[in-house]
Amino acid sequence: MQEQHNDYDNTTSLDPRIAVRLKKDAKGLVAAVIQQYDTREVLMVGYMNEEALRRTLTTGRVTFWSRSRQEYWRKGDTSGHRQYVKSLALDCDGDAILVEVDQVGAACHTGKRSCFEEGGQLPVVIGERDQDDNNEEAQA
Amino acid sequence: MQEQHNDYDNTTSLDPRIAVRLKKDAKGLVAAVIQQYDTREVLMVGYMNEEALRRTLTTGRVTFWSRSRQEYWRKGDTSGHRQYVKSLALDCDGDAILVEVDQVGAACHTGKRSCFEEGGQLPVVIGERDQDDNNEEAQA
Repeated sequence: MQEQHNDYDNTTSLDPRIAVRLKKDAKGLVAAVIQQYDTREVLMVGYMNEEALRRTLTTGRVTFWSRSRQEYWRKGDTSGHRQYVKSLALDCDGDAILVEVDQVGAACHTGKRSCFEEGGQLPVVIGERDQDDNNEEAQA
Repeated sequence: MQEQHNDYDNTTSLDPRIAVRLKKDAKGLVAAVIQQYDTREVLMVGYMNEEALRRTLTTGRVTFWSRSRQEYWRKGDTSGHRQYVKSLALDCDGDAILVEVDQVGAACHTGKRSCFEEGGQLPVVIGERDQDDNNEEAQA
C-alpha cells in the first residue's frame, strides 16, 4: 500500500472536514458506486456510513455497511473477492461516492463479474441526439 | 429513436414483471447510476420511482424523481444537458439501476462534466493485490 500525501486525519474517526460534506440519508448512509479502475465497468452499488467510508479511505480495501445484515462488510472477507481501492471521489452534493477498485474475481454474490450483468438488461427505446444537441455542445 | 424488440408493456405503467423485481426503499426509490456509454465515465447518481423508470425505458431520455423538489425531473429540460438512453440494466437484487447514456454537455448542475469531478477526489490508501488474489483469480 502506498499512502498519498494529505492532511486529513481519519485515524480514529472520519475527518470532520470530510464528514461535513456528506449528505447522509435518514439511516446515515450514502450510496457507493464501485467501478473497475482499468476497464471502467460499473460492478455494483453498496452503502457506506461514516465509519465504512473511513475504513475504505484508510485500509486499501472497500468496506460497506450492510443494510440487510446491519453490520460492516469488508468485501471479499468471506468470498475472497476483494476490492482494492485505487481512488475515491465524492459527488457535488455529498450523497454519492465513486470508488475505483481492482476487483478480484466476481463482484456479485452470484458469481457474476458485475451485479448488473447478473440482473441483466431491460429493453429500452434508444435516444439519439439531434442537431440542437450538437450545436449546444459545440458552444459549450 | 429505435425500439428494441420486447414483450414488456410499459405503455401506461411499469410492466408488472419489471416492477416486481424492484427493491424500492421506504420512499419507493431505487438508485440510478448514470454512465457515459462510450467513455464509460460515471457521471452522476440519481433516483427513480416506478414511473421515472417507465419514462426512462420508453422515451429515450433519462427521467429521475427529484428527492429535494419532489417532482419528476427529465434531465436537460431546463439546462439543455440531455441524457439519451443507450441501455439500462437492473442489478442482482433490484435496488440499483445502471443507465448508459449519451450525455450532452455537463451532467453536473455546476457545469462540470461529472458530479464526481465536481466533488473531487479524497486521498486514499491504495490497495494492492497479493499472490493469493492472483491465484484465486486464476482458479476462477
